[in-house]
Amino acid sequence: MKKWEENVRRVIPYTPGEQPDFADMIKLNTNENPYPPAPGVQAKIKELCAEELRLYPAPAADALVEGLAACYGLAKEQVFVGVGSDDVLAMAFLTFFNSKKPVLFPDITYSFYDVWAGLFHIPYECQPLNDRFEIVKEDYYKENGGVVFPNPNAPTGVELPLADIEDILQHNEDVVVIVDEAYIDFGAKSALELIEKYDNLLVVQTFSKARSLAGLRIGYAFGSPALIKYLNDAKYSFNSYTMNRPSLALGAEVLKDDAYFRETTAKIIATRERTKKELAALGFQFGDSKANFLFVTHPDYPAKALFEALREKHIFVRYFAKPRIDNYLRITIGTDEQMDALITFLRAYMK
Amino acid sequence: MKKWEENVRRVIPYTPGEQPDFADMIKLNTNENPYPPAPGVQAKIKELCAEELRLYPAPAADALVEGLAACYGLAKEQVFVGVGSDDVLAMAFLTFFNSKKPVLFPDITYSFYDVWAGLFHIPYECQPLNDRFEIVKEDYYKENGGVVFPNPNAPTGVELPLADIEDILQHNEDVVVIVDEAYIDFGAKSALELIEKYDNLLVVQTFSKARSLAGLRIGYAFGSPALIKYLNDAKYSFNSYTMNRPSLALGAEVLKDDAYFRETTAKIIATRERTKKELAALGFQFGDSKANFLFVTHPDYPAKALFEALREKHIFVRYFAKPRIDNYLRITIGTDEQMDALITFLRAYMK
Repeated sequence: MKKWEENVRRVIPYTPGEQPDFADMIKLNTNENPYPPAPGVQAKIKELCAEELRLYPAPAADALVEGLAACYGLAKEQVFVGVGSDDVLAMAFLTFFNSKKPVLFPDITYSFYDVWAGLFHIPYECQPLNDRFEIVKEDYYKENGGVVFPNPNAPTGVELPLADIEDILQHNEDVVVIVDEAYIDFGAKSALELIEKYDNLLVVQTFSKARSLAGLRIGYAFGSPALIKYLNDAKYSFNSYTMNRPSLALGAEVLKDDAYFRETTAKIIATRERTKKELAALGFQFGDSKANFLFVTHPDYPAKALFEALREKHIFVRYFAKPRIDNYLRITIGTDEQMDALITFLRAYMK
Repeated sequence: MKKWEENVRRVIPYTPGEQPDFADMIKLNTNENPYPPAPGVQAKIKELCAEELRLYPAPAADALVEGLAACYGLAKEQVFVGVGSDDVLAMAFLTFFNSKKPVLFPDITYSFYDVWAGLFHIPYECQPLNDRFEIVKEDYYKENGGVVFPNPNAPTGVELPLADIEDILQHNEDVVVIVDEAYIDFGAKSALELIEKYDNLLVVQTFSKARSLAGLRIGYAFGSPALIKYLNDAKYSFNSYTMNRPSLALGAEVLKDDAYFRETTAKIIATRERTKKELAALGFQFGDSKANFLFVTHPDYPAKALFEALREKHIFVRYFAKPRIDNYLRITIGTDEQMDALITFLRAYMK
């Protein structure tokens, strides 16, 4: 090792889900939406002007921030935007988790939390989910430097009732509490209504799932003006222009079509509920997912072997070789046709 | 102050140059390119497909990384990309400047360096430029935790000769040295050729200036595979998909038109040289800028008053109320017509 390498910040890099690219593939591994974004997005693409790209974008991302504020009935001082919810969450970790006390999050959860804690040298302590993969609210009563959890949780899909979230907030008025709602639009109850009551609550959402815009990288957060101001100060100090012009224009556009959003979201929920029945009939076990994925295990068929068999047929699902969940598969809800192909394969495989 | 605010990371936020928006304005305040990006970019916009936006972008940004490697004759392991050079530089500060010893950079320089140092709790020590606004290479011989400077320097436009850069590298083999080349395409000599010889050298560039794509937010860095790997590990840990699909597609496209790049860059250089003569004739003083801006002062007319008078006529330039440079204006090189309008105004103002 060279001497200059001694000062390098070393991290165990996060491994994103593979992005296979086969014409015939059924891609159920990264929780993308099977439906295209609202039709207005394609129309707006045609209006994008190369000439304008020579100019910096608006640093405060006004079009998008104002669109979100209008859409969710908030003031723009309550809205923060970033390059995907990962950017929003990383910035929130950097900004809010500066205590010497450990930040608390579940043991089975979004796999980026411990990576950010490592990157920013933030102490943390994982709180085990119970046997039904539920967050135990009492685990978050102890002294800590902050709290973060997804709702519904990832990769389990299990919802934490809003009353439990409020209970956690009541026990944590002295730290920032982040509720990561990447999957909230598929049926769970958002904590958004609590931001007026708790000025230390940050609610994070994304356009990558229910809005079908994973390829644009847009995440956002709602919170008290004080919380959002701190976050913006840190963001402007990191990079003053994070959201590019296509993101701002297309992101603002997608918010305008509420009917399409409701329709595609309802379709995914219906497909999910039907898929639950089919998988249960095949002997799979799973929690009651409120997300656009199911997290399933089978008493007779090891998850890893299933994962590989599916992969061979170009059906891609997600497998995590991690303690407690290494016999589970996370299956994104695709179209009805895609889920039929999956079920057909599984039925044949298990015969 | 509430108790939860005690753990908040506080920063003095960077103030980006204002982004005025008047139909008749002459915008010479943020060093944007007056010419549109290569014509292929508009053609490529028309090919963008909304349907594909539902999918995550390629996490390794392959199209762009491979395009840059091919364009600059490098291996893709020597190329890193980010959301503008600010993202690349912030990530490099986070990754490489982890020493307790101070990082060294000039006192008059890109105003983000001390902001990032503050954000990441990195100790630093500014080295004063000499009276001709030149970097004094001997100032960088002392023990330090890393070195960073722009070349040409910002906001002075003054170039540091490549021999001096190599001299600084020879005196700093034990730390990472970052040369921030945002303005390199307008006539200064790049340190790129030195990356094969010094595995601790990171050369950072951008599409925001000479490539006319400030609105897309694309920056990049060249360095040894070891350096780039460390940077990618940190980046993937922060946010695994930072470059959105439009950025990847349009960024790869702009690299294909070398003739257009040379032509527009040559035009800006010619306009700059002509503007130098006109401003000198009016009594302005300035260093020999190799960037797409001039950093000027006048013995008889205070910069601040000039700035305000120009502003009233919707001619926007940049004024920094900072020690040593508070009697200077930074004027971006626009089209010939824009510079004529500026000169005409100044001539009348000074009569």
